[in-house]
Amino acid sequence: MTKPFKKILLTGAAGNLGTELRRGLAPLAESLRIADRVACKEVAAHEEALVFDLGDMEATMAATEGCDAIVHMGGAPLEKPWQEVLDSNIRGSYHIYEGARKHGVKRVVYASSVHAIGYHGLTDGISGDAPPRPDSLYGVSKAFVESLSSLYWDKFGIESACIRIFSSFPEPADRRMLWSWLSYGDMVRLVTSCLTAPYLGHTIAAGMSDNRVKPVNMANAGHIGFAPQDSAEPFREKVEAAKPPADPADRATRCIGGWFVNLGHPDDEAAN
Amino acid sequence: MTKPFKKILLTGAAGNLGTELRRGLAPLAESLRIADRVACKEVAAHEEALVFDLGDMEATMAATEGCDAIVHMGGAPLEKPWQEVLDSNIRGSYHIYEGARKHGVKRVVYASSVHAIGYHGLTDGISGDAPPRPDSLYGVSKAFVESLSSLYWDKFGIESACIRIFSSFPEPADRRMLWSWLSYGDMVRLVTSCLTAPYLGHTIAAGMSDNRVKPVNMANAGHIGFAPQDSAEPFREKVEAAKPPADPADRATRCIGGWFVNLGHPDDEAAN
Amino acid sequence: MTKPFKKILLTGAAGNLGTELRRGLAPLAESLRIADRVACKEVAAHEEALVFDLGDMEATMAATEGCDAIVHMGGAPLEKPWQEVLDSNIRGSYHIYEGARKHGVKRVVYASSVHAIGYHGLTDGISGDAPPRPDSLYGVSKAFVESLSSLYWDKFGIESACIRIFSSFPEPADRRMLWSWLSYGDMVRLVTSCLTAPYLGHTIAAGMSDNRVKPVNMANAGHIGFAPQDSAEPFREKVEAAKPPADPADRATRCIGGWFVNLGHPDDEAAN
Amino acid sequence: MTKPFKKILLTGAAGNLGTELRRGLAPLAESLRIADRVACKEVAAHEEALVFDLGDMEATMAATEGCDAIVHMGGAPLEKPWQEVLDSNIRGSYHIYEGARKHGVKRVVYASSVHAIGYHGLTDGISGDAPPRPDSLYGVSKAFVESLSSLYWDKFGIESACIRIFSSFPEPADRRMLWSWLSYGDMVRLVTSCLTAPYLGHTIAAGMSDNRVKPVNMANAGHIGFAPQDSAEPFREKVEAAKPPADPADRATRCIGGWFVNLGHPDDEAAN
Amino acid sequence: MTKPFKKILLTGAAGNLGTELRRGLAPLAESLRIADRVACKEVAAHEEALVFDLGDMEATMAATEGCDAIVHMGGAPLEKPWQEVLDSNIRGSYHIYEGARKHGVKRVVYASSVHAIGYHGLTDGISGDAPPRPDSLYGVSKAFVESLSSLYWDKFGIESACIRIFSSFPEPADRRMLWSWLSYGDMVRLVTSCLTAPYLGHTIAAGMSDNRVKPVNMANAGHIGFAPQDSAEPFREKVEAAKPPADPADRATRCIGGWFVNLGHPDDEAAN
Amino acid sequence: MTKPFKKILLTGAAGNLGTELRRGLAPLAESLRIADRVACKEVAAHEEALVFDLGDMEATMAATEGCDAIVHMGGAPLEKPWQEVLDSNIRGSYHIYEGARKHGVKRVVYASSVHAIGYHGLTDGISGDAPPRPDSLYGVSKAFVESLSSLYWDKFGIESACIRIFSSFPEPADRRMLWSWLSYGDMVRLVTSCLTAPYLGHTIAAGMSDNRVKPVNMANAGHIGFAPQDSAEPFREKVEAAKPPADPADRATRCIGGWFVNLGHPDDEAAN
Repeated sequence: MTKPFKKILLTGAAGNLGTELRRGLAPLAESLRIADRVACKEVAAHEEALVFDLGDMEATMAATEGCDAIVHMGGAPLEKPWQEVLDSNIRGSYHIYEGARKHGVKRVVYASSVHAIGYHGLTDGISGDAPPRPDSLYGVSKAFVESLSSLYWDKFGIESACIRIFSSFPEPADRRMLWSWLSYGDMVRLVTSCLTAPYLGHTIAAGMSDNRVKPVNMANAGHIGFAPQDSAEPFREKVEAAKPPADPADRATRCIGGWFVNLGHPDDEAAN
Repeated sequence: MTKPFKKILLTGAAGNLGTELRRGLAPLAESLRIADRVACKEVAAHEEALVFDLGDMEATMAATEGCDAIVHMGGAPLEKPWQEVLDSNIRGSYHIYEGARKHGVKRVVYASSVHAIGYHGLTDGISGDAPPRPDSLYGVSKAFVESLSSLYWDKFGIESACIRIFSSFPEPADRRMLWSWLSYGDMVRLVTSCLTAPYLGHTIAAGMSDNRVKPVNMANAGHIGFAPQDSAEPFREKVEAAKPPADPADRATRCIGGWFVNLGHPDDEAAN
Repeated sequence: MTKPFKKILLTGAAGNLGTELRRGLAPLAESLRIADRVACKEVAAHEEALVFDLGDMEATMAATEGCDAIVHMGGAPLEKPWQEVLDSNIRGSYHIYEGARKHGVKRVVYASSVHAIGYHGLTDGISGDAPPRPDSLYGVSKAFVESLSSLYWDKFGIESACIRIFSSFPEPADRRMLWSWLSYGDMVRLVTSCLTAPYLGHTIAAGMSDNRVKPVNMANAGHIGFAPQDSAEPFREKVEAAKPPADPADRATRCIGGWFVNLGHPDDEAAN
Repeated sequence: MTKPFKKILLTGAAGNLGTELRRGLAPLAESLRIADRVACKEVAAHEEALVFDLGDMEATMAATEGCDAIVHMGGAPLEKPWQEVLDSNIRGSYHIYEGARKHGVKRVVYASSVHAIGYHGLTDGISGDAPPRPDSLYGVSKAFVESLSSLYWDKFGIESACIRIFSSFPEPADRRMLWSWLSYGDMVRLVTSCLTAPYLGHTIAAGMSDNRVKPVNMANAGHIGFAPQDSAEPFREKVEAAKPPADPADRATRCIGGWFVNLGHPDDEAAN
Repeated sequence: MTKPFKKILLTGAAGNLGTELRRGLAPLAESLRIADRVACKEVAAHEEALVFDLGDMEATMAATEGCDAIVHMGGAPLEKPWQEVLDSNIRGSYHIYEGARKHGVKRVVYASSVHAIGYHGLTDGISGDAPPRPDSLYGVSKAFVESLSSLYWDKFGIESACIRIFSSFPEPADRRMLWSWLSYGDMVRLVTSCLTAPYLGHTIAAGMSDNRVKPVNMANAGHIGFAPQDSAEPFREKVEAAKPPADPADRATRCIGGWFVNLGHPDDEAAN
Repeated sequence: MTKPFKKILLTGAAGNLGTELRRGLAPLAESLRIADRVACKEVAAHEEALVFDLGDMEATMAATEGCDAIVHMGGAPLEKPWQEVLDSNIRGSYHIYEGARKHGVKRVVYASSVHAIGYHGLTDGISGDAPPRPDSLYGVSKAFVESLSSLYWDKFGIESACIRIFSSFPEPADRRMLWSWLSYGDMVRLVTSCLTAPYLGHTIAAGMSDNRVKPVNMANAGHIGFAPQDSAEPFREKVEAAKPPADPADRATRCIGGWFVNLGHPDDEAAN
């Protein structure tokens, strides 16, 4: 059967999620262009590897040429000093979208984050379309790409899904992940759903597995057809034995962003 | 065990959905009065067959006499010239409701359609109680019956469910049906739920199977207890091999009404 | 200064509201085509009078030719037997919209009614975009035109405002009108706003004066720029002296449709 | 593995639900303090039994000392004369919360009831956060504790879940329970979820099993992680054979409170 | 002209608001029954004065006999020890509603309070129908009467308006009152509106003057027709000169309940 | 009387709005620090003038020292090439907020823009808290600061108002401004309201005068107490005579961003 895409650009391909996606996206495209600022390992025959910094506009835009879709996982993966957030996440993502526009790429899947909305509360019952309420400069940069991609859809017709990834790790590592966990398998399913959904327009979707505790309503993105198949429950006993219960008076317990809300300013930290 | 109804009138009984319902409603009533403008085939012992046009007020009202419920599937099943829409769907449905009122029928299940709300978008996340936004004269006639039945509940105490059927076919025939499909089995289950729900009042319910892609939220009709059991997923590979992906710039891709939104005026078409 | 329209068709021109609008619309168009099923009196130089039934498709469509806008006030003004509602309000309004489509009229203002939503309650705090909940066949016909005009906007690009007129009379005649009254002056201002609003698309607007008691929120139609200038308050003392207080147990008191909700079926009435 | 609680106070422990909870809560705490106004039977080694009236402030407050959580099921379980509602449910629950405050108990699970919101309708599609609309003095007392516990969270930091129990019985006993039933197993799971949820703040949650007919949306309490595992469906045939269908004109059919809405004032009843 | 009421019972008639209402209600009723636990001064010919405690059921119920409306302003006017709140506000108000039921009084206006919803925030933009979130036992008692009156409407047909009075004083006394102030004149207008509104059912309305700063949306109570005529603006300069700006980090600044949210438990205070 | 602020930093002070604000803010602070990248003219005794680029982090942060509030109007005022938007609006605003954080400034008023939400429609009835939907890179940069300031409130306690200025000019210059106009007087009043509001937290407010046509609901910012006193109506005749009506088929007519939605990418423009 024909694969739906000729060539997909995957950024952040050398990271944990990128590595999973190299496997997961293989059935969707005849070839994968895998990019990172460090070299990807064990490049397969159907893969084409690139090394560049997202802050390098020329290289980044060139990497998008000849692709029909982009899965943009690259950039700083957590709170970083402003200059790094600016270069990797803000400027870098602009370069990706400009590349898509210049080279006619029609669909982009972007790794946004719970940290774009981290100050919303667990009892607020927000849905995937909650307004930005970032808990970090990192989160601000994610919100920036969410609105940038909105512009590129409304004005330039490039469809985007911004996936607010909660906690994507091999397994739940603390009590918060008992509700925020997105298994690698579900992460791949979610990206796949976004790439193959009948219509995307500009969609913001929450990314979590089918965990029992669900502080966020994911119904707003029904049109992408994401059906998570994993759950954090099998890990509950192990996690609860290892980690003490949270303190309800702690803002990190009450807010969906978790411990990010208690971080100081990254430039202060960097200065110490 | 006693069947819940003595006699149900089924209109449109000779059509595809009507034929399924003849089978499906049999367990619910001691006898079925099956009506269409053409003769129904293979009339069973528990069935009573009638042939008349819905536009014939006298015949239509007479057909409702002695029934405790009506499943009204009759009328033009897609976009038609105005005169036909008017006679079959608007006047015809008025005759059904007047019959129900005159003869004390207490519950009506009506085959409304996605085309009553076809201009809403796939990313709008509408629920079953979205306001009318018809995509055709056909859809306008469906919205008409939705508001007519609202009156007959509020003023005359006749309960109604208006089922907005999306795409009820033997199997999904195109990519849109991968999300809009309502299997025949689920269609029968949905009508059955409406007939047996503890309380209906005036309910508008979306009719789709449990497909993976869900652009419409069906939670508003939880009180009817419809639990779809089929899904379009097993047909995905076959459909995607046969049909090209949709163009996101096409309004038919973006709107839940699909290709109906691109139809011209039926009287212009008829004139050509 | 140039008038914004060359020729406006006004239907129902011989009625009370039509007569007010002949005066009120004069500043907006170089000429007015005034139509009714009875002859209009005292036709002025800038007016062109037509007599026809809205049920006459040919005559109605012909009347729309050469106009740049239509103010459609014609049709049965209250509950009537089905055949009359069908011919005057349903078929007649279809003829108007078909005329607009055939002859390139770009904007229509339609006299819808509170009776399209009459079963909503005074304490429900509905806004102008409440879903239909008609209290009469008359109200059903108004809801029909609201959805018909929605189609003609979405599919054919004809802008419409559907004004849900509450009670437009020379002065408040009963206690209900102390909140539902739309003065003639405000009625003219409302139609004028709809004709001259910068963008209409498909708008449903509630029509009431700036009465002190406001059970309906009119904010949804802010884009038409209607600023009512009259109020029922000066008439309160007179009305309260003449009419007893309403009974809260009466549905006519609780529903915004008032006494219409207590009317029986018009065909029963007609039969008596 | 360590149990999450040292000692849980369970009130109403001699009642039907209390008896189930004695079994159900055993895995959660090293010891259970079981309290009722009558003696509990067969007190186990891990249990400590108390007998007192909730209206007795001193005894009630004393009972909360040394506990880390309270499951408050005690009080009058249905409509009762005012003085009894006042003493058992209003004053009694105040004593419980004061005890919690004085003795540093951090989490309370309270048995509220559908009767706090009984006048909402089956077709209203309310969620667990619907505003109070009690159907009885009993329901008023439940709404009282819901707002009292809100204060104790906002001001004193005591987390509470108020579970609006619909119908918790061994099996569905009438047609209404085909949708309102909460199995004993699911009731225990719901209380357990509330005790172990990562964050509760002040939560109001609807308590029903996973019945097919769902007039109430339970999504607002996703953060407690309640996953019902039972359904009324297996009992449908038996119940429908035994009980006639409901009359849609009866307010008890339309309102989620059921027959409570048709009860007179309990003091009148008591006087007869 | 005939006055709309024969006899109105006014409780709390000796207090500041009660004294204003003695004047303000005079035009509405042929006689006023003025009640308080202390004697009212200067009883006029059209007034009938009673002295009793609201906690005295017999006396309170007797006071409602022969009245067509009740304006219930009595009870503890701010945070008090539990026993006083219970007797004056909870039990006392129950006595009032029972009196109304026994003696056929059809409409009650109740002085609820902002403190029933005091923990909502200034930036939450809540409307008059916000759910209870009391900031004090006093506020809990106000929420109790709100739900009690809901029952007495739904079950016994007694209409009620619960007015959430913000700050009703002769003039704004601190910076918070620059937005929360309800002038005496507007308080009287608001009560009058509630007594004379065409339909009340069960209404919860916010009570503030037309102050420039409006953290609460009052549109939900449009059907009562309250049009405030006063504003705190003329007092701004004086207040701002006398009082320092609020600290945004203080919960009393952020919550509409103001300094009530910082009060401790009244029984602790009483014990000191 | 004491002025509420000791020193306010005003950026963009040499622009049109800045010039108005130099006059308008004078009563609020003992001294104004006026900053722009060009020299301000006619610097008064109570003013202190600074010249620097917002892209210069050191200079910008230094400018905030010693101020108790900032009115940040500086940066590119319309669509510009990416590099300029990045330096002036994104990096520049970050420098402002970092300055505020380092130097303990407690309140910031930021000139956001309608162009942060420009693709929303005139008939959507959005309120001031609509989610971002930018119509330009300029609009994206405004949305960036809105979420940045959200972080600085939630994490660092700096209050911000982001004013979405629609069209602030000496008078309405085209038909769109008949609804989008914000007079200079109202602009000053709006900034003043934000500076003096009792509590700001993080507020996004729409900025328009009290024009008759109101496609946007401003009620969400009632807590800032902005009462516009001007209207575009007196300019209507002049504008309508000079400018033709808009075409409803043009996206610039339908979207609140107006002609910005039809702009191409600024870097393409710059390249031509």
